[in-house]
Amino acid sequence: MVGGAGRVTGRPSHKPVVLKHMDSRHAANGVSPLEQRSIKNTEELSREWLKLATFSEILASDSSHKCIFVLLSHPSGERGILIANKSAFAESQEAITLFLKQAHLKELTKNDIFGNYEITVAPEFNVINSQLIYPVNDRLIAKYRQEEKFVIAETPESYVFITLPYIEKNQMNLTWVYNLLQKEAEEDRIIFEDVDKHNGFVLALDIKWDGKTLENLYLQAIVHRRGIKSIRDLTDKDVDLLENIRSKSLKAIKEKYGVRPDQMRMYFHYQPSFYHLHVHFVSIKYDAPASTTLCAVLLDDVINNLKLNGQHYQKSTLTFMRKNTDELLRLYRSAGVVQSD
Amino acid sequence: MVGGAGRVTGRPSHKPVVLKHMDSRHAANGVSPLEQRSIKNTEELSREWLKLATFSEILASDSSHKCIFVLLSHPSGERGILIANKSAFAESQEAITLFLKQAHLKELTKNDIFGNYEITVAPEFNVINSQLIYPVNDRLIAKYRQEEKFVIAETPESYVFITLPYIEKNQMNLTWVYNLLQKEAEEDRIIFEDVDKHNGFVLALDIKWDGKTLENLYLQAIVHRRGIKSIRDLTDKDVDLLENIRSKSLKAIKEKYGVRPDQMRMYFHYQPSFYHLHVHFVSIKYDAPASTTLCAVLLDDVINNLKLNGQHYQKSTLTFMRKNTDELLRLYRSAGVVQSD
Repeated sequence: MVGGAGRVTGRPSHKPVVLKHMDSRHAANGVSPLEQRSIKNTEELSREWLKLATFSEILASDSSHKCIFVLLSHPSGERGILIANKSAFAESQEAITLFLKQAHLKELTKNDIFGNYEITVAPEFNVINSQLIYPVNDRLIAKYRQEEKFVIAETPESYVFITLPYIEKNQMNLTWVYNLLQKEAEEDRIIFEDVDKHNGFVLALDIKWDGKTLENLYLQAIVHRRGIKSIRDLTDKDVDLLENIRSKSLKAIKEKYGVRPDQMRMYFHYQPSFYHLHVHFVSIKYDAPASTTLCAVLLDDVINNLKLNGQHYQKSTLTFMRKNTDELLRLYRSAGVVQSD
Repeated sequence: MVGGAGRVTGRPSHKPVVLKHMDSRHAANGVSPLEQRSIKNTEELSREWLKLATFSEILASDSSHKCIFVLLSHPSGERGILIANKSAFAESQEAITLFLKQAHLKELTKNDIFGNYEITVAPEFNVINSQLIYPVNDRLIAKYRQEEKFVIAETPESYVFITLPYIEKNQMNLTWVYNLLQKEAEEDRIIFEDVDKHNGFVLALDIKWDGKTLENLYLQAIVHRRGIKSIRDLTDKDVDLLENIRSKSLKAIKEKYGVRPDQMRMYFHYQPSFYHLHVHFVSIKYDAPASTTLCAVLLDDVINNLKLNGQHYQKSTLTFMRKNTDELLRLYRSAGVVQSD
């Protein structure tokens, strides 16, 4: 779920374009492109701009949401960003009937009752929702640029020699967590607490949730006990803690929001974004960021694995993704653990 | 990520279509639609079928992934399902340059440097990837209908007493898999094969992938060995099989498509849509349906767990989601294993 569609909405803040007294050094005819814009209508100008523009770079793309962010260069020296986003299907009976009438099938494969086709329809039935932003500066371009991700397989050894020193050096400021646990901040976001120092926790609204829309219900259980950085540190001695979190959180969620235990997804992040043990409680209706494989590890799986083998997480190879410019990925690459060719 | 595109993958098991000696009660001219299929070419027949079909119901839709599942009725009495899925943007410089040349802008709004447009292009530059499945029965229709989901925690005992009998009763028709493995169908979709009967497999393009757009690269490795229904059946004796699949598939993908091993997500579905062991190989850039927790189990985790404990998957509680009207969920509810209040 690489930002993609999100960015279509997300309009970054930017410096307003000054329409008068512009520096005209880029304009061949002495009239700057920006001045021309005040004369012709904007649609015509955008068409002309795009016609002369050439491909420069794909800043981002999201093939599952069918959108793409392209950086363009214009002969005037200006740069622009084209965001193109395939439209969703209209869902009325009329629209679909028209679509069926229009549809031209080209067969790709056929096996038994299953056939695969490419369907084409007239352009007006298949528009592409787009934004054209121009001119753009470096900061705006950086904002839209997507970073590639890479998988790291972390063995018990590479955890000790690479990940752990990284955590100790970069990730141990947990002031905000302690403030929350001590109710010095965000107390109004806590919906349940078990005050036990060893197996207790607070259950709090995640920052992404408004506390109302049940379809994207999102809470976090944060343990009171300090020193458990992530699932790597968990052993069979912690099964009571985890089962306590599971049962009491599910009960509190059922009582407060009416959402049943079998409608909840419960997981840890690995790597987590902060190294103080916490569990995500999210409605299964919500396709939450980083709830997927290579990011999230189910609470139920962790409990199961610790019951089978008390040292499971000290003995396992754990896989996860990191962004291309991420410091931890850089350390793994330097150590030659991740292939870089 | 509402099931949507996921269903495109899921090829439900089904009775094979018998092409001869069919009951012709639905055919006006005494020749059943199924008999006609053996005479004309399948593309022509599908076009004709679709031309006469009418809209009956939207079974599911996913506006963020831009796909839709439509139930159709045909005058012959047959029903069919059309799955239409907007294509992702091609990302080569050539493709984008062509797209820019083609693009016709219609302005919706313009504010400062930001303009919103509807772009139209020639149909062949904006195809819709589709499946047409006909005729379909009630079970197949139910499979594609979008519904609320619920989590099941399957213990080793409930697997034996509930899931296994369910699989044996409903899910053991694997004709299409055997057709593929014996190259009697879809041979052109196979990109690599290890012919070893015990540890060999075929690596084939998933039905959702066009074989070109690297951002949503999606292949399936299907084992030659019969009788491994799912990860539940795997033991330490199968680690060689799994490591063979992992290393040879990653090598083939690197050689054929240039996609690096650390850019791939590899997983099993649990429960799978068909009970013959197979592994999904998907680009991490692609937010593939059912690649998330409660649906997918990472190949690397399975190998890791089997190395730690050869009986891991016979001893574990495994959690997964099922739709509200799903037969397996109904069986669990009848047994009182899943809460139903």
